[in-house]
Amino acid sequence: MVEVMGGLEPAREYVLRALNAGCHVVTANKQLLAEHGEELWAAAREHGVRLRFEAAVAGVVPVIRVMQESLAGAYIERLHGIVNGTTNFILSEMARTGEPYAAALADAQRLGYAEADPTDDVTGKDAAAKMAILARLAFGTPVSLDQVVYEGIEQITSDDLAFARELGLGLKLLGTAERVDGGISVRVHPAFLYAGHPLASVSGPYNAVTIESPAITEITLSGPGAGGPQTASAVLGDVVSAMVPPAPTPEPTSALPIISDVESAFYLHLEVDDEPGVLAQVAQILGLQGVSIKSVVQEGMGEKARLVMVVHPVLESRFAAATKLIEGLDFIRAAPRAIRVLEEQFV
Amino acid sequence: MVEVMGGLEPAREYVLRALNAGCHVVTANKQLLAEHGEELWAAAREHGVRLRFEAAVAGVVPVIRVMQESLAGAYIERLHGIVNGTTNFILSEMARTGEPYAAALADAQRLGYAEADPTDDVTGKDAAAKMAILARLAFGTPVSLDQVVYEGIEQITSDDLAFARELGLGLKLLGTAERVDGGISVRVHPAFLYAGHPLASVSGPYNAVTIESPAITEITLSGPGAGGPQTASAVLGDVVSAMVPPAPTPEPTSALPIISDVESAFYLHLEVDDEPGVLAQVAQILGLQGVSIKSVVQEGMGEKARLVMVVHPVLESRFAAATKLIEGLDFIRAAPRAIRVLEEQFV
Repeated sequence: MVEVMGGLEPAREYVLRALNAGCHVVTANKQLLAEHGEELWAAAREHGVRLRFEAAVAGVVPVIRVMQESLAGAYIERLHGIVNGTTNFILSEMARTGEPYAAALADAQRLGYAEADPTDDVTGKDAAAKMAILARLAFGTPVSLDQVVYEGIEQITSDDLAFARELGLGLKLLGTAERVDGGISVRVHPAFLYAGHPLASVSGPYNAVTIESPAITEITLSGPGAGGPQTASAVLGDVVSAMVPPAPTPEPTSALPIISDVESAFYLHLEVDDEPGVLAQVAQILGLQGVSIKSVVQEGMGEKARLVMVVHPVLESRFAAATKLIEGLDFIRAAPRAIRVLEEQFV
Repeated sequence: MVEVMGGLEPAREYVLRALNAGCHVVTANKQLLAEHGEELWAAAREHGVRLRFEAAVAGVVPVIRVMQESLAGAYIERLHGIVNGTTNFILSEMARTGEPYAAALADAQRLGYAEADPTDDVTGKDAAAKMAILARLAFGTPVSLDQVVYEGIEQITSDDLAFARELGLGLKLLGTAERVDGGISVRVHPAFLYAGHPLASVSGPYNAVTIESPAITEITLSGPGAGGPQTASAVLGDVVSAMVPPAPTPEPTSALPIISDVESAFYLHLEVDDEPGVLAQVAQILGLQGVSIKSVVQEGMGEKARLVMVVHPVLESRFAAATKLIEGLDFIRAAPRAIRVLEEQFV
């Protein structure tokens, strides 16, 4: 049975009935698991059936599977998570544009990242439910939603973000589950992160979870936190894995040809004589080979003059032909240096 | 059988013999899989045994399991990977210190991040073997090491890194496996990334892989790429999962107390009257509650004067008591604003 109706009742009753009848169940219902997880997991154990719920936390980011399987034997010390895409989008917008909370929330609603009633997201309640589920798996101890302390982002001002930026800090709505003095603490609140933290660069509607354990140091998993196809993909992955045991590496399904000449953007560094017409000749050769310049910097004088440019994606063979021709020009003082540039695939 | 001896022979012979004898095998041997994977996977299928190899690619980062299980049904379009910690450490050091390649390599050797003979790492061959394995899993088509084009980092100058930084680019040794025109391309070469790319912030000896698919947009997995305990943890995770099927969510193993008062660092924003002694009084109250100031900025004049500070970790109850006392001071013009700051756990 696949349960994607949401809410506590009748979802709880349906899921329980299915488990008790010996059916595997896949659910995306974080509220249900955060409030009645123990009851449901016990029913699954009792009847020897699978209850899978990857889509309930962090969408398609496979944090549940990694915690339940890859890290089944690890002693987990601490989790940090950005597990609510709506608030991460709002905070990213406030930081990027300087606009106040209300305007960023309105943007999020207009773009479909926030619901008409955003209460559960902006108060931190949605994130708290997810952290309760993660903490249960991490520490093997019952954790329910009402034990999670949470605080939302409604009080954040763009002023705070501006000051923090001066201090090298970025703001996230951060979920934390950690061992403290023989117990655990599970909480959600806004927190500043230093730029080097693995979660600091997670922006927009993305989710990410960092798992810390002495055996693994830390691993970070990130990806889109929501979205129709993404949630469907997580649910279907669960359906497959509830029905069939993990397959061995399957036979090759195809024998695809290996393509050797692909398109890349390039950075190109040329040491040149400081004389008129240099850029024009280089640009002409590039143009004849179909290489289009994206940006160029000409700097230094005399013996130290150089052209540094980035070109748009082009077949590597065309680019190589162009640099070979450029290398032969009499004003080129050293072999051209080229390094590929990865264009952004997503924003 | 667990194979961690490395090299092609006799590892290949031993692994084959074990599979043919009906034993599950766990291996960390990327070279073996990149050159003889099809033969070994076929033997595992034929005898109905498991061949697991999480530790062969990206250490403890669970990219093999996620590709084989969570994404078993997904159509994967492209992978990008930083799959060699040695070269990532060297490039990070060159970018951070401005030192040339040879000096950064020497640092890496001194710190144990590079071997005495670093050839396989710095030429890109090690990364190429890992990309062959990932491409095989992603596209279901045989890919062997000799089909992967690779280029190393020996020619990179600190000059290039400095120029690139001006353009907002950072340099990585990047593995790519992607579908191109009905075929695939698998390659490893240095590449510049824009700051917003999920792999741009992966620095030092870390590994990371980004998996792109229409169904999931993209997910990124990152963590330490090597290290004794980490590799052992990946091998043991495989041993457990080769021996037992995935367990249902186990019964709680403990009932840990929930701790509500934990330590946090804080950012504190105070609007104050512009008069002598303000900082002294605030500092005194903080000190009496055991709150220690890490950094403080006093800015603005007259009506706009404010104190912005970051304090070291302290029990939240102590901090709350201090801000309550501060709020009562007669020169405080608005309610203090406090936001938690996450201290770096790792570097």
